[in-house]
Amino acid sequence: MTAQGQLLTELRAALGGAGVLTDPDVTASYRRDMMALAPHGEPLAVVLPADVAQVRAVVRACARAGVPIVPRGAGSGLSGAANAVDGCVVLVTTKLNAIEEIDPDNRLAVVQPGVVNLDLRTAVEKHGLFFPPDPSSYDWCTIGGNLATNAGGLCCVKYGVTTDSVLGLEVVLADGELLRTGRRTVKGVAGYDLTKLFVGSEGTLGVITQATLALRPLPQAPATLVAAFGSVEAAGAAVSAVVREGLVPSLLEIMDSASVEAVEAYLDTEVGPPGECAALLLAQSDSGGAVAERELAAIERICADLGASMAYTTTDLAEGRMLLHARRVVGPALEAYGAWLTDDVCVPRTRIAELLGECRRISERHGLRIAVAGHAGDGNMHPVIVYDPTSAAELAVARTAFDEILAFALALGGTITGEHGVGRIKQDWLARELGPTGMRVHRALKAALDPANLFNPGAMFTSPPPRD
Amino acid sequence: MTAQGQLLTELRAALGGAGVLTDPDVTASYRRDMMALAPHGEPLAVVLPADVAQVRAVVRACARAGVPIVPRGAGSGLSGAANAVDGCVVLVTTKLNAIEEIDPDNRLAVVQPGVVNLDLRTAVEKHGLFFPPDPSSYDWCTIGGNLATNAGGLCCVKYGVTTDSVLGLEVVLADGELLRTGRRTVKGVAGYDLTKLFVGSEGTLGVITQATLALRPLPQAPATLVAAFGSVEAAGAAVSAVVREGLVPSLLEIMDSASVEAVEAYLDTEVGPPGECAALLLAQSDSGGAVAERELAAIERICADLGASMAYTTTDLAEGRMLLHARRVVGPALEAYGAWLTDDVCVPRTRIAELLGECRRISERHGLRIAVAGHAGDGNMHPVIVYDPTSAAELAVARTAFDEILAFALALGGTITGEHGVGRIKQDWLARELGPTGMRVHRALKAALDPANLFNPGAMFTSPPPRD
Repeated sequence: MTAQGQLLTELRAALGGAGVLTDPDVTASYRRDMMALAPHGEPLAVVLPADVAQVRAVVRACARAGVPIVPRGAGSGLSGAANAVDGCVVLVTTKLNAIEEIDPDNRLAVVQPGVVNLDLRTAVEKHGLFFPPDPSSYDWCTIGGNLATNAGGLCCVKYGVTTDSVLGLEVVLADGELLRTGRRTVKGVAGYDLTKLFVGSEGTLGVITQATLALRPLPQAPATLVAAFGSVEAAGAAVSAVVREGLVPSLLEIMDSASVEAVEAYLDTEVGPPGECAALLLAQSDSGGAVAERELAAIERICADLGASMAYTTTDLAEGRMLLHARRVVGPALEAYGAWLTDDVCVPRTRIAELLGECRRISERHGLRIAVAGHAGDGNMHPVIVYDPTSAAELAVARTAFDEILAFALALGGTITGEHGVGRIKQDWLARELGPTGMRVHRALKAALDPANLFNPGAMFTSPPPRD
Repeated sequence: MTAQGQLLTELRAALGGAGVLTDPDVTASYRRDMMALAPHGEPLAVVLPADVAQVRAVVRACARAGVPIVPRGAGSGLSGAANAVDGCVVLVTTKLNAIEEIDPDNRLAVVQPGVVNLDLRTAVEKHGLFFPPDPSSYDWCTIGGNLATNAGGLCCVKYGVTTDSVLGLEVVLADGELLRTGRRTVKGVAGYDLTKLFVGSEGTLGVITQATLALRPLPQAPATLVAAFGSVEAAGAAVSAVVREGLVPSLLEIMDSASVEAVEAYLDTEVGPPGECAALLLAQSDSGGAVAERELAAIERICADLGASMAYTTTDLAEGRMLLHARRVVGPALEAYGAWLTDDVCVPRTRIAELLGECRRISERHGLRIAVAGHAGDGNMHPVIVYDPTSAAELAVARTAFDEILAFALALGGTITGEHGVGRIKQDWLARELGPTGMRVHRALKAALDPANLFNPGAMFTSPPPRD
């Protein structure tokens, strides 16, 4: 029997036949995530372990066989971090989908990685509790993927990113041992913060099999403000003023004119004021009642002072949802014009207008539609580049535009990725952002925890081969 | 020249004579921190570098000589993490005390590690900004020490611990190279979260030479509530109810009867109601105006429902400060009875009453005064054990009591240290909390970043000697 055949036999023995997929027609849907630019390979097998023991069996069998493991949740990622490499085993965590515990008295939940973000939100809401991270794929992405990428979303301006909601993890290491990090208590400094090392490590250090998550009190129903500006500079200045005046809305989003135009065509309704607007700001407060009114009134005043052509606040929930829906459908709306890929940079909040201006110039230079929407309150912008999927040349130009945006964000003092991750599209850019010392430390940590480069090789950065 | 003499010559050449202290009468004050239980050694020298280049020179010289480095801030620590080991170089960061930048528009500050916590608080307050971490030594501890221990304080129930306020670091590594972690932006997932790995690493992985800190809007002046209970169970139930009802006060502290008694004697004033009370709760809201009143009214109602013998709310700032002062002087107040050492455990917030009850039983069993005060909103308790400093036997009993409290906290699902750290008093307990796999991962990370065990050897855990 070949080594591969031997491995498949072991995997089937451990997981049962139904837990090991090898039919290429079936495994095809597990080969890649949602980022078109990222390369992917052909897996040897796709495995769906149903418990921790099965995960450990898979890791041990693959380690023995020297076959790499690519951990994967729902595949909603936008960096290729979950993409198969040739001959690998894709370890899908979606069957590990139990919400094991909700403890309202200690405001925490213990979950398996395959739980869908929305399912957790719904479950804890019944207890008056709130799990903040809300990536745009929240209705189908998994907690495991959120943890692996340190996912963000619209909530971050007030509630932080995934790592801010994690108390502890259970992780299967490269030797199959089970590591428990963190704790169930709110505070704790016993040892290194391994929890936050694994969060955002893109599946390169181990397989997360359980997470203890910190929950928050459920906020009040949101009040919503929309404001339109004649220039991106004015919109950017409004964001800076919100920050400087010490306001903390629960959401602060920006859409440029290309986003607004696409969404208005897609929804067949006006989102901004009649006629052209250069940028739209959306803000929410979830503080409730008079406090929410006061917070949004302060933002509305800032917008008016900075020359907004329109500023409108509503406490009507349906209307607020409709406005938020407009922000959420930027991607689908752009599909009317072609395929798209979304970039993900984060810049100091004072530099948003400059980034939007440069995206406009890059768009004009390459003759490509680029629409920018983003989490203005964090400086986390998502320029979405539209291209003709039938044209390899245009995809290449789109990649050039993608890289030019990264270079500009770095020059602004920003980062190459605010929340999507490095994956298999930004490894060179990671080295550019971190420099040689930073990369050396990354490789040293990877080698310390995964000396054979078993987990997700080639994601985030390439590791040197192990020393035998 | 001896190897030690050669090292001293190199250090003096790099730092100047005034930056290198070797007179034992002078170095004596740099030998240890504030934890009486922790062992300390005699340093070869104490160095006070004045810039990053000097830190790098010290690290390189010590690495060449094979002489360990113990980094140290103000020495306010409570775990012996900054204690000298025999023949080491104590690297004191207090001369690196520049606030390099305050950027109100991006709500961040860039500081050197020797800046005193209070000095930073004062400086950013002028810009309407707030640096939350407030350990009880905030008027003399340094930011570098706060970072090394991931310090907490009274603020954590609402604002988190030090790691939650750090965006990026500059660190001198064991080979003298300069590592930059993190970023200046609010969000960012480019690579592993090295920032949060170094925060709380107790000086074992490198020397932090700069930090980029996230600031918050300055909160409103606090309103304060004090409530007295006839049993620790009722007080504990009130804490649980506050959590369960989704209230987030800006402070929620508890003092047991031994704490209240000591403080009332020390201040010669009544803090609680006349007569005995089993536990006192202190709460604050910094939400301002009607919101603060509503938050504290809800807590007052909870306290009344749970049988509080007294519950009193004040918006008078001086009165609030006086009540908080009573909480802060528990340590000094206990000095009337002998020397003291403070434990530091964190338990699930529902288990506080059990911990207080057990501390009472341990106190009675050993005939030692034990007063418990702590951050109830986090479950982070500080049992303070009083002993006769002239009696080695009583110190040994105090250590037994100290360990019994740790064992009980672990049994409650808690951790051996909520905010003070492991240092040189809880290494065995760290192994007990983390287990062999956790310890193996710790040693692997330490070896990856500091293969010669140059930085703070013996703090947190003992590392095997380097493989030559």
